[in-house]
This record gives sequence, structure tokens and C-alpha cells, in this order.
Amino acid sequence: MRRKQLSAVLLLSCVLSASAQTAPPTQTPARHNLMPVPAALSFGAGRLPVTKSFTVAATGHTDERLRAGIDRAVRRLEGRTVMEFARGLAADAGGATLVVETRGPGRPVPAVEEDESYALEVTDRQAVLKAPTVVGALRGLETFLQLLDADREGFYVPAVRIQDRPRFRWRGLLIDIARHYQPPEVLKRNLDAMAAVKLNVFHWHLTEDQGFRIESKKFPKLHGLGSDGNFYTQEQARDIIAYARARGIRVVPEFDIPGHATAWLVGHPELGSAPGPYTIERRPGIFEPALDPTREEVYKFLDAFLGEMAALFPDAYLHIGGDENEGKQWDRNPRIQAFMKERGIKDNHALQTYFNQRLLKILRKYGKRMMGWDEIFQPDLPKDVVIHSWRGQTALAEAARRGYDGVLSNGYYIDLIFPTSQHYLNDPLPAGSTLTPAEAAHVLGGEATMWAEWVTEETIDSRIWPRTAAIAERLWSPREVTDVEDMYRRLAVTSVRLEELGLMHERNQAMMLRRLARGPDVWPLQTLAALVEPVKEYRRYQQRPQTMLSPLTGLVDAARPDSDAARRFHALVERVLADAPRFESHAEELRRVLGAWHDAGPELEALMDGSPALHEARPLAKDLAALGEAGLEALSYLSRGVEPPAEWRAARLAALDEAAKPKAALEFPVVAPVRRLVVAAAELPRLGSMTPAAWRAHVETLAAPPAPK
Amino acid sequence: MRRKQLSAVLLLSCVLSASAQTAPPTQTPARHNLMPVPAALSFGAGRLPVTKSFTVAATGHTDERLRAGIDRAVRRLEGRTVMEFARGLAADAGGATLVVETRGPGRPVPAVEEDESYALEVTDRQAVLKAPTVVGALRGLETFLQLLDADREGFYVPAVRIQDRPRFRWRGLLIDIARHYQPPEVLKRNLDAMAAVKLNVFHWHLTEDQGFRIESKKFPKLHGLGSDGNFYTQEQARDIIAYARARGIRVVPEFDIPGHATAWLVGHPELGSAPGPYTIERRPGIFEPALDPTREEVYKFLDAFLGEMAALFPDAYLHIGGDENEGKQWDRNPRIQAFMKERGIKDNHALQTYFNQRLLKILRKYGKRMMGWDEIFQPDLPKDVVIHSWRGQTALAEAARRGYDGVLSNGYYIDLIFPTSQHYLNDPLPAGSTLTPAEAAHVLGGEATMWAEWVTEETIDSRIWPRTAAIAERLWSPREVTDVEDMYRRLAVTSVRLEELGLMHERNQAMMLRRLARGPDVWPLQTLAALVEPVKEYRRYQQRPQTMLSPLTGLVDAARPDSDAARRFHALVERVLADAPRFESHAEELRRVLGAWHDAGPELEALMDGSPALHEARPLAKDLAALGEAGLEALSYLSRGVEPPAEWRAARLAALDEAAKPKAALEFPVVAPVRRLVVAAAELPRLGSMTPAAWRAHVETLAAPPAPK
Repeated sequence: MRRKQLSAVLLLSCVLSASAQTAPPTQTPARHNLMPVPAALSFGAGRLPVTKSFTVAATGHTDERLRAGIDRAVRRLEGRTVMEFARGLAADAGGATLVVETRGPGRPVPAVEEDESYALEVTDRQAVLKAPTVVGALRGLETFLQLLDADREGFYVPAVRIQDRPRFRWRGLLIDIARHYQPPEVLKRNLDAMAAVKLNVFHWHLTEDQGFRIESKKFPKLHGLGSDGNFYTQEQARDIIAYARARGIRVVPEFDIPGHATAWLVGHPELGSAPGPYTIERRPGIFEPALDPTREEVYKFLDAFLGEMAALFPDAYLHIGGDENEGKQWDRNPRIQAFMKERGIKDNHALQTYFNQRLLKILRKYGKRMMGWDEIFQPDLPKDVVIHSWRGQTALAEAARRGYDGVLSNGYYIDLIFPTSQHYLNDPLPAGSTLTPAEAAHVLGGEATMWAEWVTEETIDSRIWPRTAAIAERLWSPREVTDVEDMYRRLAVTSVRLEELGLMHERNQAMMLRRLARGPDVWPLQTLAALVEPVKEYRRYQQRPQTMLSPLTGLVDAARPDSDAARRFHALVERVLADAPRFESHAEELRRVLGAWHDAGPELEALMDGSPALHEARPLAKDLAALGEAGLEALSYLSRGVEPPAEWRAARLAALDEAAKPKAALEFPVVAPVRRLVVAAAELPRLGSMTPAAWRAHVETLAAPPAPK
Repeated sequence: MRRKQLSAVLLLSCVLSASAQTAPPTQTPARHNLMPVPAALSFGAGRLPVTKSFTVAATGHTDERLRAGIDRAVRRLEGRTVMEFARGLAADAGGATLVVETRGPGRPVPAVEEDESYALEVTDRQAVLKAPTVVGALRGLETFLQLLDADREGFYVPAVRIQDRPRFRWRGLLIDIARHYQPPEVLKRNLDAMAAVKLNVFHWHLTEDQGFRIESKKFPKLHGLGSDGNFYTQEQARDIIAYARARGIRVVPEFDIPGHATAWLVGHPELGSAPGPYTIERRPGIFEPALDPTREEVYKFLDAFLGEMAALFPDAYLHIGGDENEGKQWDRNPRIQAFMKERGIKDNHALQTYFNQRLLKILRKYGKRMMGWDEIFQPDLPKDVVIHSWRGQTALAEAARRGYDGVLSNGYYIDLIFPTSQHYLNDPLPAGSTLTPAEAAHVLGGEATMWAEWVTEETIDSRIWPRTAAIAERLWSPREVTDVEDMYRRLAVTSVRLEELGLMHERNQAMMLRRLARGPDVWPLQTLAALVEPVKEYRRYQQRPQTMLSPLTGLVDAARPDSDAARRFHALVERVLADAPRFESHAEELRRVLGAWHDAGPELEALMDGSPALHEARPLAKDLAALGEAGLEALSYLSRGVEPPAEWRAARLAALDEAAKPKAALEFPVVAPVRRLVVAAAELPRLGSMTPAAWRAHVETLAAPPAPK
């Protein structure tokens, strides 16, 4: 899928699209906390009170999956309202608070063709949810839960009419449980969260160089020797699949071949393109071991193995990976070279195509559609193969034009620690797309990818959530829903709501800081942790080399992507500068925030003295104090209307350049707004001769960060 | 075990013993963070650095359990230090950082006779842990982990010699998973925590009126109809037992009969003393359904069922409950009455004895020792029966005198929300005991009891931890270790350390407050939540009637026992008063704390307006502000040396009396120290004519809370 080239070429497009944050107004008629935003909604007058007598009735089709879904929703409503509601369904639909009218069960196995639409109408008398399928009803129940509001009078759902259906049929989350294993309960809470934001595909990345994590009864050495004992039994897999199905979520398994296959070869070196022996890979990166595509025994093995997996995983699709195989083992194997020569296979890409063609036959035999990463795409590929694109919208559009279904993951690499807004504005079918409607229909949707080099059970939720909720909105809601500020407002509410499902993305940070601080009193460390973000892209690999066996309990692991505190600070600075030339509005609040940074510095250093695991972060404590000091001084000049001495600007900007350098694989997103304050103070003299707006633009230009060297 | 009488009689003794907090000095030679305190330890000079090259070697006996235990310990050390250590055991013991020398495997099944002793010697060159058994080595590894310390130079373990063994052989935690079911992962993290504080018995309370939670393959209607589907499969039970064994923990199952048996009768009404039908009980309390002790079919059933369970649970002991059967169904059943008359069984107690005698035969047949609550004790009971005492030390001593083994739970009822100190000072063999050494040996130990009327997966850890760590110390450490202040100091560190095992006792509070506040900003609510405690004893039952189906997500559930903030506040007030007549020392800090309460009040009210689930807690916001105001005023009078007007005292004390009344099943433990401040201010005039010490005693007397009506 993914690694090496991605960095250089494609992140640029992310950055460019993210800068287009001056989005059109959203089409939502009122302020609400729905995420994803429904296709159509209009609020009415009135409200439906949610009281102790809350009941649900079901009419039309009902089955166990629907009943369980309603029960889960009612229990969550109880948890929020601290009221006990009746168990089971109400007999009298006329008197029920919520009526769920379902037409039919939908697909027995969740499918890409599932009708997920629903209509929800809430009046001050009753809420009526109508859906053609049970999955549609489940989606509508999540919307109903998101509508719950409250005030002095009590809990209520506002009067509203919603007609909703997803924009894309394939809305996924890939979790790599191979590089770091995750126990079933972690997957389950993430499935619950996926359902809460209407995602419908769990892409289970089951094999890697670093681990083979699914039990094979036919080839027990695969998981037996390839997983350190951390694998899913088939019973556990069936349990996860059932759990997902109950929530209207498909499970697409991935068995990544022919590359990324070290862990297969630990137990079965005879499948490899070099003799071995092999051991489970512990490093991050791209590795040479690959299956041998020239030997019939390999296909016999894959036939048996994939047959076993095809029976275990009921989904119509099976992902065969196919990415990042550089073929170095092939180059060095004379037998493989002879095979290629003999058959006129001109290069490794063509050899992999040969391999894929063989795989395709096997998968067809077992009734599965083949899916793979960009690399598998080539002109003579049958049209029923699905392209999973890490390369981007252009590659995806090209495939669609040729008639191939495709799924986008470029721009949704949540392991890269980019801000939510960037993922949010990344559209599988951007506004300028020249695809015909028929071609566009081949763009099935997208998948967020949780690659797991640097996540554990403790931290994975914080890498997935809440950012993935914004990706879920991109894939479900109309293209025009792009108001970044409103997204962040709703995301904050969504993040808290997701916690009721057991997610640890919010609560684990404080725990990790207590462990680092070796005690309960962590406020200065919390101040710092709220303001730093792990370095983005693949920089962590260089700056803080670790292996798959390293403890991921450092400050970089406790820190979270897309700092809320930094974003709020940025907005605060903008407000103060917008009040030129007086700089009074919000100045007091800004002064308090900067003062807290300044004060935290020394306390932080004392705390870090007693915590060797934080020694690497000591320079950050100094930077934090320096940021606070620079900001306070700048604010003081601005407030007093006093021009700072000439050397002050250079000294402060130098300090900020120092603070802008990552340390302990962490960086301060607040350097930029502090730089703006400093430049603004230094440019005070120009304010007399310019309009405030022109002056602000001038400051912004001067304060732009230095170009990377 | 437990409910009705307990309240009136026995809590008094708790209160009395808790007031004896002027404890003898501990015998520990230096300030350390060990919990429980070892039997003997002496610190030396020097330290053993813990660096990246940390390794462990094992000599003597090694087995899979030991290797896994060492591996877990090393992984935890990695988590704390953020250093990656070598996997597996070092080949060279001479060069290893830690050497574990184990003589033998110990008992194949964890047993009360297990030798858990160990010796640990740390020098600046090496740490050597010696133990006769693997379990002893596991205990020593926990001590080693607790010794980890750090400063500017890095992580280290101080030079120390420890000779350690438990004072009591039976150190348990009962978890009632019947009233509220807990998934296996909750039990596992609690088993890890038990091992961390050297507890060795997990008492699994598996059946109740409110749920039958273990799979019976012979009688599937028991769990099938008695559990709402929330039960442990036998495979899960075996997994839990293995998990416990790996940590040197016994698993003692309890099947509570003949009372507390409603859930058995849902599927098997024919076992009951009244015809039924029965449904799973949802209320808390004591209920009438009881097995029929007069019918042979009942014993045939119990023989088959207990035979099945005896095979599933390898422990030598099996707990049959036997508590709180009032025999009302027996009184009303003419056939049972005729049976009693015929056999000369004079009352229900005698009938239960008859039942127990029959049970005893069954258990002996399956090689199990019978254990039951106080009620089963009667003079003609064979001596191999173990008495589990909810009644107290006197009953336990009486049984011991007659030659019966006993285990104490009175005083360890952690569901009753008492402060840690109270449990801590509750000794199974108090200093004044008149038992001979041979008699005293019958007092096997004690068990903390987590009765589960009001706990869920979200809250159970906070009810068990960290308080149970202090009970663990009581049961392991020498009797003389009773310094309450030092216990609290170590408990704060222990609590943070326990989090690394996945416990939620610290981190879940913030999550619950966010849910209640319906958003991320909860600071005023946190201020309140840190200062209130759920009402104690069984008062919650009356003040906030709920059922087993009610959501336990209210403020009372988020609040925790034994408020740290309240204890710190109490100490702060003492310090200020100790500085009479100037009242300067710590006054500024006290003023800041009181000011925060005062300021939080209005913000809290605004927050609560938007959160109907907090409406019940509105009076607490007013109380908090009133407490802050009264304290600030009193402090102001004291600081200025100005006598308040006469009516001030009455008005403030009246406000405090109001604040002392529980609301929303919550109470303020800080009312007493604020009352002391108010009385001190009012009694300022007396300070001139008394010594400061006499004056303080005088204030203390006057400020004593009013006697309960």
C-alpha cells in the first residue's frame, strides 16, 4: 500500500487540499451535533421529551439483530440520561416514544450492495424511524442517539425530518493487528465506534512481516510460529465477524502476499524465494522475503489456505495485499530468473501479475472477489478486481475510467498524525472530477488505515479516534459538507460520546502521564502534553528508532494528533490580532494561557528530573517556557502600543526557530501562532500607515514559517 | 454473609477501631513505596542502576510459569522506563541484573499451604531473589518492581535486604459477578492487581438471586435461564483459573445455597421450597426463595451439579454460602413442616444444619473442603469446615477456639464505601487477642468483599482499588505495621502503579464526568466530584432506590470512596490551626482551595442546568459554595485575629448542618474540617486565656459533629 514513495509525492497534495479550508457554507439548516451530517435534514418546531417512560416499538420486519441493536441503543440512552427505561419492545406502537419501521432483513451477510438508507421524523409526540433494511434502521438509531439534547427542562430530541443515505457504499477502517497485536475487546470497541459514525467495512490486516495473526487449522505453523502466540483463533474470528454483522459492518480480511510475508515463512520457509530460515521481523520497514511465484507447491498451499479462509470469512471480497514487493529475493534466485526467461516474463512487476492471475483463479473458485493495493493494477486485469489506492485520487480515477472498482486510502493514513482537517477535506471524488456518473460509480469509497508500527492497546484508540469520525463523515455525507470549523465543533462532542463505547482515546492520556511522572500529580506535564504532537509522516522512524518489541509508553505515545489546545490557541491569537490596533479583545485570556506555559516550564523541569523516561523531553520544557515568554512579551508590546527594540525580534524568532525543531519526536503546533504574535509586535510601526486588514495580511506573510531546508 | 444485621452492630466496632489511628511507629527503616510492607527489610548504601542492559537470569528450578512471570515483570519495567530490554532469560547469571533462584515448582494447584516466602538482596552489582517456590519468586518479583525508583541519574533499585513471608495464608478478594456481571477481562485485570499486592485468593461469587453465572453442562437451564446470557462458559472459567494460577492465586468458587437461590429456580423451580414460577430477581435485598432441604431429588441434583463444579474448579475448597436464609418459604410449606416434625428438627436453623450435613457428604465425596458464611457454624459441625465470618473477630476467635479454621470479611466490606484507614486497621487477629498460638493458627486470614449491587464494568475497579491494597497489606505485613499516614502516602503511589495493569479506577472518573456534562469541559464538576463520597453503609439503597437493571452512570457512581482531596484538606486545616495564634502557616494554600470551591459553585450550577442527569446534584453545588464561603470567612477572622459577630457562628453552623445532609446519595467529608474552622474563628476570644494546644482541643470538642438522631 504505502510507505516509501507516499511521503515525497502524495503528502503534498494533502497539504494543498488542506490549505483550501475556506470551505463553502454547509447545507445544514441549524446547529446540531450530528456526525456524519445526514443527506437531508430540516429541523422543525418543538421537541420530543425523553423521560423515564421512554419506549421503543418495532413494526414491520423485526429480527434478533434489530432487537439487539435497539436494546444497545436504549442502554446507551440510559447511560447518558441516568434513567432506567423498560426492557424489550413496547407492544403498542401508537404510544411508543420511538417507532422503528423496518421493511426487511437486508442481506444475510453484510454486503457492499446493502441499502443503508433510512428516514427519521421526530415530532413532539413521537419519533418514527423508517428503513428498508435492518442495517438502515441501525444507522438511523445512531442518528437518533446523536440527536439527544438537553437543557433545564430535561432531555429531549428536537423535532426534525431526516432523509439519509450514504454518498459512498464502502466506508472502511483498516486495522493492522499484525505489527502490534490487539486483543478482541479492542477490536470490538472499535467496531462499536465505527457503527456509531456509520462506517461499514472493517478491513482486518491479518498478516505482515511482523506477524501472522489468524489461526489456520490446515497450516498451524503459520500462526504457531509466526505470531509469538498472539493470534486470533477461528472461533474468535467468527465472534468478531458476528459482532460486526450485528452492527451492519462487513469484515474484509487481508492476507498480504507475495511481499510483506516474512511471518508466513517462519513456519513455512519452503514457500519463500530464498531458502531461509526466517524469523519474525521486529523492525519497521519494507523487507525482502516474498513468496516464490514460480513453484506449483506455493499455489497448492495458497489454494488450501485461501480456501480455508474463504470459508471462515463470509464477505464477498478478499484482500490479497500485493504492495511493496520489490522482488529482491526474486532477482537473486537463479531458478526464478530461469522461469521468467523461459516464459518471457520481462520483469518483477510482470511476474507479480502472473502470481496475481493465479491467485485470482483460486479466489474465483472460492467465490471471492479479489482486492489489492494499487500495485496489482495492470491493463489485462479482469474487471471484477478491486483496486485499493494508496496512490491517490488520480490513480483511482484512472482505474474507474477503465471500469475498475476502487477504494481510496491515500489521504486517510491516520497513522501519519496529520490533523483531522486534512483527512476531512480529502475527497475520493473531488469536486473537479471529470468522471462520468457511470465511471464515478466505480469509486466505491474509502478506508482510513491504522498502520500499527507505533500503537499498542493503550494508544491505538487515540490514533483512530476522534479523527476517523471526520473521515466517516467525508464518506457518508454530501460532498458539500466541508465546514472545517463546524466539523471540529461537532467532533469534540462526538469524541466524548464515543467514550461510552469503551474507547480509551481520551482517558488513557492522563494514565500514561501518571506513569511517566511516577505519581498522581501531573498538571505541568498535562500542560505540555496537550500542546505537543508526535512528529508527522514517517519522521518518527528516524528520530526515535524503535522496534516492534519496544515499549510505546513515552511522551510521544501519550501525546495525541491534532492538539485541541493548539487549535484553540491559534484561534485566540487570531482574535487578538483582529482587534488591531487596540489588541484588547481576548487579550486577557491569551495572557492567562501564555502565563500558564511560562509557569509550567520550571515545574516541568523539576518533574522531569525525577522521571528519567522524560529526560529526552527536557528541551521541550525549555521551549514551552520560551514560547510563553515570547508570547507574553509580544502581547505586552501590542497591548501598550510600544514598539519593541530591533534586536528583540531577531532574538525571539531565533528562540522560536529552536522551539520549532522536533525533540523526543514531538513538535509544537503553537510555534506558528506565537511567531505571528512576535512579528505583529515587531511590525507595530507599520500599523499606522496601513488598514488593520492589510497590516494583518502583511504580518501573516512575514510570519510564514521558513521554507524547509 | 452480610446484610441486615451487619449495619447496626458491627460497624460500630469499625468506627471505634478507626479512631485508634494514633498507631505505633512502623518498623520500616526508611521511606519506601512498598505495599505490602515486607516482614523484614533493611536498606543499605548504594543502588543498582536499571539501564538498557537490564537482564534477568533464572537458576535452580525454572518452569513455564516462572518464565512467564519474569517476562510480565520485565515488560512492566519496560513500560515504566520506556527502555527496551532483552527478551528471554540471560544465560549468564553472573552478569545478569536480576537473578531469580527458585528451589522448586511449589504446589501444582495453588493451595493454602503454599510457601510464598522469598528473600531479596539488592547490591549495587546485582539483585538476587531467592524463593523456595515459583509463587514465592512471583511475590518477590512484585517487590522488586515496587522498589524501582528514579532520580536525575536514572532508574535504579536501592540496595536492600528483604526477608519476606505473609502473616496470613488466606488473603482474598471476593468479587460478586452475580448481581452485576463482569466480563473476563475485568476479572483478569483485577487478578493482575491482586498479584501486584500479593493477594492469593480470588473468591468467585458465582450465584445469587440476581444471576446464575457459570455454565453447567449437566443442567444448562441454570445459566441458560438464570443469567440473561451473561455467564462464564466452562472454557472461560478454566482460562480464568489458569490466569490466576499463573499469578499464584487460588480460585475459590461460591455457590450460595440454600438461600440467595432465586436464579437457580428460574430454570429449576422443582428445587424450590415453593412451587414458583421464578424470575431473575432485579431488586437488591434479601429474598425468600430457597432450595427445599427435605427432598432427595434436591440432593441428587446438587450431587451432580457440585460434582461437575468440583471437577471444573481445582481448588481444595468450595464455598457453599449458606447466609441470610430466613426460611420463610420453609415456614409456609406444610410438607417441609411435616418433615421437620417427623425428624424432630426443631427450627429453620436446625433444618439448614441438616442441609449442610448432606452437602458436606457430597463435597467430601468430591474431595473438597466445605466453606460457608458464619450461619453454617454450629457445635456438631466437623472440624474440616471453614467459617467465613461476616460477623467479626469475636465470632472468628470463638470458632478458632473450638478448632475451626476461619477467614474474616467483617471490616473488609469494600462495597460500603468506608475509608481505607478503617479497613486497614481491621485486624483478623487484633493485638489483644487471647487465642493461644495453636488457636490463632486457625485464623487463616481475610477477604475483601466486592458485593456488586452498585458496580458495573465502568466503576468496579474504583470500588476495589486502591483501598484493597491496604487490606492486602493488613493480611500480609506484620501486625505492627499500622502507620495510617504512611499507608496513605504509599497508597497514592501504589494506585498509579496499578494502572499499568489496565485498571480503570483512576481514569474512568473523568470519562464519566464528561458523559454527565455532555462535553469535554468538566473542571467545576471535577472539583465537586473530588470532594464528595457516596453515602456509606447501606444508605444508598434508601436514598436512591435502583434495581440491577438501572444505569449506574450518575454522579454517585463517578464519585469515589475515601476522597484524597478531602483528606488533604483536613490536613491543611489542621496545619493552619496548629499555627495558633498567628494562623499563617499554610493559610494562603487553604485560602486558594476554599476560593476554588466558592468559585466553582456558580459555574457548576450553569453546567448542571444543561445536564438533567445532574439536576439531582444541584444542592451540592450550593453546598460547595457555602462550604467555601464559610471557610473563607472563618479563615479571614482567624488571620486578622478578629472575633466574628455572635450570630455569624450560628448562621454558618446551620449552613454546615445543611451541607452535612446527603444529597443525590453523596456527602461531603469536608464538612467536619470546615466546621472546625468556623468554631475556631468563633472561639478566638478563648485563645487568649488558654494554651494553643488546649484551645485546639477545646475547638475540636465543640466542633464534633452532632450525634445522629
